[in-house]
Amino acid sequence: MVGNTLPNPPVGSTIRVVPLGGLGEIGKNMMALECGEDIIVIDCGVQFPSEDMPGVDLIIPDVSYLAARAHRVRGILITHGHEDHIGALPYVLPDLEVPVYAPRLAHGLIQVKLRERRRTRDMTVHAIEPEEPIQFGDNFRATWFRVCHSIPDAMGICLDTPLGSIIHTGDFKIDHTPVDGHTIDMPALAARGTDGVLLLFSDSTYAELPGYTPSEQVMGSALDRAMADASGRVIIATFASLISRIQQVITAAEKHGRKVAFVGRSMVANVQMATEMGYLDARSGTIIPVREADNWPPNRVVLMTTGSQGEPTSALVRIANGENRDVDLMEGDTVIISATPIPGNERAVSQTIDNLLRQGAHVLYDRIAPVHVHGHASQEELKLMLNLTRPRYFVPVHGEFRHLRAHAQLAWELNVAPDGIFVLEDGDILEIDEFGAAVVDSIPAGPIYLDGPTVMETDSAVLRERRSLARDGVVVVCAGLNAEGEIVGPVQVAASGFMEQHDLPDAFRGLAEMVEMEVAGIPFVNNQESAQAKIRKVARQFLRSNLNKRPMIIPVILDT
Amino acid sequence: MVGNTLPNPPVGSTIRVVPLGGLGEIGKNMMALECGEDIIVIDCGVQFPSEDMPGVDLIIPDVSYLAARAHRVRGILITHGHEDHIGALPYVLPDLEVPVYAPRLAHGLIQVKLRERRRTRDMTVHAIEPEEPIQFGDNFRATWFRVCHSIPDAMGICLDTPLGSIIHTGDFKIDHTPVDGHTIDMPALAARGTDGVLLLFSDSTYAELPGYTPSEQVMGSALDRAMADASGRVIIATFASLISRIQQVITAAEKHGRKVAFVGRSMVANVQMATEMGYLDARSGTIIPVREADNWPPNRVVLMTTGSQGEPTSALVRIANGENRDVDLMEGDTVIISATPIPGNERAVSQTIDNLLRQGAHVLYDRIAPVHVHGHASQEELKLMLNLTRPRYFVPVHGEFRHLRAHAQLAWELNVAPDGIFVLEDGDILEIDEFGAAVVDSIPAGPIYLDGPTVMETDSAVLRERRSLARDGVVVVCAGLNAEGEIVGPVQVAASGFMEQHDLPDAFRGLAEMVEMEVAGIPFVNNQESAQAKIRKVARQFLRSNLNKRPMIIPVILDT
Repeated sequence: MVGNTLPNPPVGSTIRVVPLGGLGEIGKNMMALECGEDIIVIDCGVQFPSEDMPGVDLIIPDVSYLAARAHRVRGILITHGHEDHIGALPYVLPDLEVPVYAPRLAHGLIQVKLRERRRTRDMTVHAIEPEEPIQFGDNFRATWFRVCHSIPDAMGICLDTPLGSIIHTGDFKIDHTPVDGHTIDMPALAARGTDGVLLLFSDSTYAELPGYTPSEQVMGSALDRAMADASGRVIIATFASLISRIQQVITAAEKHGRKVAFVGRSMVANVQMATEMGYLDARSGTIIPVREADNWPPNRVVLMTTGSQGEPTSALVRIANGENRDVDLMEGDTVIISATPIPGNERAVSQTIDNLLRQGAHVLYDRIAPVHVHGHASQEELKLMLNLTRPRYFVPVHGEFRHLRAHAQLAWELNVAPDGIFVLEDGDILEIDEFGAAVVDSIPAGPIYLDGPTVMETDSAVLRERRSLARDGVVVVCAGLNAEGEIVGPVQVAASGFMEQHDLPDAFRGLAEMVEMEVAGIPFVNNQESAQAKIRKVARQFLRSNLNKRPMIIPVILDT
Repeated sequence: MVGNTLPNPPVGSTIRVVPLGGLGEIGKNMMALECGEDIIVIDCGVQFPSEDMPGVDLIIPDVSYLAARAHRVRGILITHGHEDHIGALPYVLPDLEVPVYAPRLAHGLIQVKLRERRRTRDMTVHAIEPEEPIQFGDNFRATWFRVCHSIPDAMGICLDTPLGSIIHTGDFKIDHTPVDGHTIDMPALAARGTDGVLLLFSDSTYAELPGYTPSEQVMGSALDRAMADASGRVIIATFASLISRIQQVITAAEKHGRKVAFVGRSMVANVQMATEMGYLDARSGTIIPVREADNWPPNRVVLMTTGSQGEPTSALVRIANGENRDVDLMEGDTVIISATPIPGNERAVSQTIDNLLRQGAHVLYDRIAPVHVHGHASQEELKLMLNLTRPRYFVPVHGEFRHLRAHAQLAWELNVAPDGIFVLEDGDILEIDEFGAAVVDSIPAGPIYLDGPTVMETDSAVLRERRSLARDGVVVVCAGLNAEGEIVGPVQVAASGFMEQHDLPDAFRGLAEMVEMEVAGIPFVNNQESAQAKIRKVARQFLRSNLNKRPMIIPVILDT
């Protein structure tokens, strides 16, 4: 790691690194870079909610920092077509109105996504090719380069800036036998490393794992064996955007004379798009509509579905529960869960497996069979990336805090200068200039929660209220206010999620009377709020001392 | 597996196997066995709630089947002192009033537990010794035998019955170098196998894992190394009932001249009891109160805490959040999480690790260091147990459905007769008589949820309501009913967990008026329920069509 001969940068230039998502968390990857008057953004992903975010459909990055500087944003540069890299575009683009640049397959997936949400108007999405530089404003020239990942057309990005070159790996692994035949562009990385790299952003998702990540080829053999062994149908669940996996399934199915049908809206849409664009290669007649699958003997059929994360409304979970419109499990079915549970989904995936087994299916999943290889570099590959690029500065990206720290530790072991390693989290602003680098500021970059049409901010009271409601339920105390501004009886009490309904009359005995007594004769004229506060206090004390319970209390005052 | 020479059973005897917990789930292990007029129960454990059970503190088995037959229950036989085997005793004993029989350490832990809950009166807990048979009624004679697990005095139970012998392994692994020096009693098992075993219940928790589970010794070396390497304090989090792990920490600490202090109420209570009973061996002066830990240099100190599962109120999580009364993290601290996350706790554990790292601690956990070995047999050990005992009938216990199925598969591969393998779930009743065995019935054996003083049954409306409240929040619509039984305005609307409070006036605009209009002039004299139903319907339609939302709606009627 010695001999890094970076030329002296021009006086006065500063690069600002503004991570807006994916640093200190898995998902919603988004990174802004500023130089002079120019801002570019790398990726724009979503995150999926965990069980402690009730009612939340999706989580997107907070782009208010960019929205306030929208006129300076020259483009959103996409590395590849997975949801955690492109999924927030439909929600973010209306605020920013900037052009998007994406590798061809990602471009196709983004178009599908924008069409679904009827968000295509006024949005410009350009398809880029690797090795063809694109200029963004005065200060950034971007050149995409191929990497290996679990989707074709996955790329990293090299940025030429006045201070030197910046490399963002995107998500990557080093696979010498990838499904699409495109290996990672090591010569380009090596050349950059020789010329001198100012700053490296590198994927940390599997920075805790020693050794090398297995090639996708391993997975191909496993699919092959499963299809040979299965006496009936083979049902394979994976992510709809894992186009490489879908290709492997098609290839294995063709080898064993099986037809392939796709279940689940997003799976069908992506397959159609990828086929049209030439990213999926299937013989004529291999792919059949799911409604025709029953016309073939079970041992001639493969079904591919969504639901590998146990998502409640997914095709696989509906199949496991016997509730899918198109597919009923039958004797002899083999189900393959070709994915690893995302942290937080373990229980949902386990339940799905159990329900499939209870229905008599044979189930293969990662703990008992090699039916998934992941798409991220392990430690030896990360070291190779660091040694090829030999950066002056290093910022691990894409991972929970412990992944970023583990990656930083690797860089430290490889003699990246300790003052050049920065473990940033979302919102931490790093400035680099000719003299050095430092974290100079922190901006709000917390999660934005989408609940159907409702947008909730990071510190949303709604989510706090929901957690409280979930824990202890709600008690409603309703009282009338007379013309003199006094609370008058009878007070009504109702509850939900608090105790069994048949226990409520006993539990609430005396509560209405206590409220009436405590507030009798006190005028609250034109002051509903103080009447509500008083009722809340009385009810809280009653429920705590009589029942040892602390539910949410909603006091309602009715003018009578 | 040939040569099973079971003598012919007496005519007319029947064994009923009634699993009440732990089959099809991890935790709350409880198994009832009936023969003639006698019932015995093996274990009586709790389960800890997952994130989709808001407000639930503990889950216990449904013992209504036993309560209805309490006069026939001869005893509760405990295999070892872990929570998932003894934790429900304080809640179940008042309903059953039967004597408990437990190995000595479990006996001590049960006494601590009953004292904490002031439930000692009228409860009889006997300490048993291995190899000393105890008769239960006319039909069961129980002999405990030693197994290895992550707590001393862990045992399985052999039962002599009129139909033959039954073996229940409890939780076990085969460890040739256990912490307490007691290996599993293979000769007893071999002798039983030679004489003929009617029925084997065997631990399935790790039936998915190939190979052998490592010895506890591995863990001892890892602790040794960690204490040698750490320049500051070593903080070790594990379960309070993992007495063997606590012994290993004490031993390693003494080797490195460190003092050991315990943090967390249950940890302190268990250590005191186990020390008094001679199950923990520490030199005088090794164990110090936590308030004295700061009197020693950091490299002379080990702290042991609860919180290895990321439990929100545990000592470790409070330390990670900088909120523990007794312990502040300091530069140079090494934290060891000596446990594997129970499914459903992965995210909480990850967050705890991240927060410890953010505070500058060095953290060792199972993904990056061998700081935990589990206490359950892997496949080769399970095969050994099957081959030693050579049972006529086999029922895998302790595990999710997929673990039970994997264990059944092993039995099938070892030539246990396919008609002798029964994958039961909680509540499935298996009957065995001289002619054979069959599942004859299924009884309610769903979970019972404890929320502080409140008990909620399996299909509790309270939990359903809480999930609904958590997902979509609650809207309260309050209206007055006049002397003619008509709804009169003004109607009041309130909400929680629905939308941000500042958005509510806009969102609810027109709702009160619509309710007033829709119910105006309709008399609901003495019929609050139909008035409520009408209001609920109007509000639901309004919220759905105007806001596309489906909150819980609570209508309240006030007599005015």
